[in-house]
Amino acid sequence: MPVATQSETPLYVQIAEGITQQVAAGSLRSGDRVPSLRQLSRQQRVSMSTALQAYLWLENRGYLESRPQSGFYVRAPFSTLIPEPQFEDSKTQPTAIGTNAILADLMESGNDPANIPFGAGCASPEIFPNRRLNLILRRIIREQPNHSARYDFPPGAEPLRRQIARRSLEMGCAFSPRDVVVTCGTQEAINLGLRAVARPGNVIAVESPTYFGTLEAAASLGIKVIEIATHPHDGMDLNDLERAIRKHRVKAFVTMTNCHNPLGYVLSDKYKKALVELTARWGVAVLEDDVYGDLAYHGPRPRTAKSYDRKGLVLLCSSFSKILAPGYRVGWMVAGRFRAEVERLKLLTTVATPSLQQLVVAEFMKSGGYDRYLKRLRASLAGHVDGVRQAISKYFPKGTCVSRPAGGYMLWVELPPKVEAIKLFRAALAEHITILPGTIFSATGRYKNYIRINCGHAWSETYDRALLTLGRLCEQVV
Amino acid sequence: MPVATQSETPLYVQIAEGITQQVAAGSLRSGDRVPSLRQLSRQQRVSMSTALQAYLWLENRGYLESRPQSGFYVRAPFSTLIPEPQFEDSKTQPTAIGTNAILADLMESGNDPANIPFGAGCASPEIFPNRRLNLILRRIIREQPNHSARYDFPPGAEPLRRQIARRSLEMGCAFSPRDVVVTCGTQEAINLGLRAVARPGNVIAVESPTYFGTLEAAASLGIKVIEIATHPHDGMDLNDLERAIRKHRVKAFVTMTNCHNPLGYVLSDKYKKALVELTARWGVAVLEDDVYGDLAYHGPRPRTAKSYDRKGLVLLCSSFSKILAPGYRVGWMVAGRFRAEVERLKLLTTVATPSLQQLVVAEFMKSGGYDRYLKRLRASLAGHVDGVRQAISKYFPKGTCVSRPAGGYMLWVELPPKVEAIKLFRAALAEHITILPGTIFSATGRYKNYIRINCGHAWSETYDRALLTLGRLCEQVV
Repeated sequence: MPVATQSETPLYVQIAEGITQQVAAGSLRSGDRVPSLRQLSRQQRVSMSTALQAYLWLENRGYLESRPQSGFYVRAPFSTLIPEPQFEDSKTQPTAIGTNAILADLMESGNDPANIPFGAGCASPEIFPNRRLNLILRRIIREQPNHSARYDFPPGAEPLRRQIARRSLEMGCAFSPRDVVVTCGTQEAINLGLRAVARPGNVIAVESPTYFGTLEAAASLGIKVIEIATHPHDGMDLNDLERAIRKHRVKAFVTMTNCHNPLGYVLSDKYKKALVELTARWGVAVLEDDVYGDLAYHGPRPRTAKSYDRKGLVLLCSSFSKILAPGYRVGWMVAGRFRAEVERLKLLTTVATPSLQQLVVAEFMKSGGYDRYLKRLRASLAGHVDGVRQAISKYFPKGTCVSRPAGGYMLWVELPPKVEAIKLFRAALAEHITILPGTIFSATGRYKNYIRINCGHAWSETYDRALLTLGRLCEQVV
Repeated sequence: MPVATQSETPLYVQIAEGITQQVAAGSLRSGDRVPSLRQLSRQQRVSMSTALQAYLWLENRGYLESRPQSGFYVRAPFSTLIPEPQFEDSKTQPTAIGTNAILADLMESGNDPANIPFGAGCASPEIFPNRRLNLILRRIIREQPNHSARYDFPPGAEPLRRQIARRSLEMGCAFSPRDVVVTCGTQEAINLGLRAVARPGNVIAVESPTYFGTLEAAASLGIKVIEIATHPHDGMDLNDLERAIRKHRVKAFVTMTNCHNPLGYVLSDKYKKALVELTARWGVAVLEDDVYGDLAYHGPRPRTAKSYDRKGLVLLCSSFSKILAPGYRVGWMVAGRFRAEVERLKLLTTVATPSLQQLVVAEFMKSGGYDRYLKRLRASLAGHVDGVRQAISKYFPKGTCVSRPAGGYMLWVELPPKVEAIKLFRAALAEHITILPGTIFSATGRYKNYIRINCGHAWSETYDRALLTLGRLCEQVV
């Protein structure tokens, strides 16, 4: 069954992405000559001009270089030339976070389609399988015309819970449809989870940097957070976590073990196991935000920390917002021993998740091709992330470091120490470019010279120019 | 433009409902002879057998009686024979409410379509304009295929906010699209409102009885409530409210001034004005839950307390769950001076409301016929409520009192003191009938012999039998 991205991505990009995958897989290496235009057009059964477009696209993004009279060659990727952000150790205290003043700006700028969307964590419309989702929508409207005439009380629509449970083995788990609670996105899942495991005044531990939505949710509930310094590749030192648990009577730990936002790493199975053993020993609940877990670029779908949970203390949270449709607002959680409390809180806060979207997602997952779809999506996003990395290495000031994500579509950019990210945020907004300043990823005002860039967009001249502008603004806001 | 209920309600019921409206309007009175079957069939251009069906339907529900050889006559409605619940004054203290043990049962039983749905506040599917909504859905999918490929960050979709603002005059208000924040139903609006105006440990005042969702939401946020004894027709004594505000430093007051759930009353404009003047004097915020406000049976659409708000202290909350589609989860609020905080909290808890349903509701409201649709809906629901009242007066034990709602579709039933509503709830569930026990409408365990009955369902033999069973069970659970 054809998946929608196939038809929505231009043919030459599809071909080019095939070549980036060969580079990633190592079957094409730096310095190799790629097939001639004539060979490529014959292999792929496309016109010469489509073949040329594919190579120009690759050249533009730094994958290939053309040598006159000779052809196109794989070049040493820029990405190996620009370093990753450094690990900064730091000791912090539990903190009651204040209201973040720039959230209102984020909402407003995120709603304006005229802005270049490097800010909010949302991929561009053409990345999503809109056509296929719409076909399913139409079918469900026809077959179940009363689809929305009742409340789908918690735990939510059974067909969706069944499909989610069917995929639990891939996450290393074996939960049943009855274990799943459908939510309005991962954000609601995190909120319900926080409320189920902690009370106002309690302390939870978080990675640093961590997704600002989690920090703000905790703050709004009167929950204090302690930040654990987190290595850009290897996660926290678990000894630091244990010290914090012991010292501050931590109730819960919020973590992204897969495709961390903003760092991009995927932690090892060994780490996940050790983490869950540690927290279980202390009776600490773990909120595992796995919203990007399906978007790890390499190998099989990574396991979750939840897969090592023996005591029901891990609350696994995810959604379809990063994979299928942000505007559907369909998320889910498997809340272990907190399930009943989570269902109760769900009823009291939003009563139910919209029925129609639950049915559509269930049908999309059921009707086959989901894995193939995910594979293509991952490859596209990896390409987009790489494209932005290349541009940053070209346009940003010396001293800039960029993360090398293993999944997802966020880049964590460390700017030279003099550059103030908040100023850059405002200056960029004036140029209709949205980014996220690093400070909102910390409860204690760290990451003043960091920004997060959303790369969920296919490459375009406009985005390239926007990154050029951003690089120039970095020089101006010091 | 034909509205969906027209085609989904059987013709004879439509005719019968026309006659109940004449009775309600006073143009047909007790003892009047109604047209002969032949006259009716000619007037309405229907067959004699359809005319007969209409009269039998009316007879079955106690509107008409047939006199042999003479015809059908309007009878004294049962509803005048069965008294309303009495006002019970009581003084209470602010209370931290415990977890309500029966909520899990409510969710589970509400999800089972095999149960007779007198429990949850949800009308039956055929009452909603599903066909027309589906037509609009299809159109939007076609015209905006990327409808769900982004987040509609707070305040929500502009076309919907515009339509809601257009109707503000009918509520006695004049708010603009920018004042509206779209939510996931009224329940989310109430939650966001509570969090914006009160902190854990604060005290809010509520009517007694009041909707259990509000009590539970407050409890889950660590907010204490003080119940103000509320007259079944006239609302609270405002002096009681003022005493409570003075004594307990009340932060906010939650009220339903229109079509109260469960009491059914619509309060006067004078009352609303006095209420808002009082709370404004004390700087107390008012959360006005107007979810049933469009369903007042008589006269123009009632004003809201919000219409008297001069200080931005009233947070008006409503939704389309009782009017168009419960499963859409589209609600809204106008939060006055708390708007920015409400938007921030919305972003942090559910990020956005699904885009598609917002667009559909906006289009439904825009495309005309909305007022006519509401008028028919109100008439149908008034008929349903009356049908259940009749049945209760026939089947329930002596000493039963039933509310006389001015809108909405809930009945508040006071059973003889010996009848324990919780026992009745369990006994009914064993017979696959759901009801709500009165105790959950109180923070202090009042209303032990009360139940709420959802009447949002067209009359049927099955429901009649279920009410007969309920009446019988009342005798058994004493």
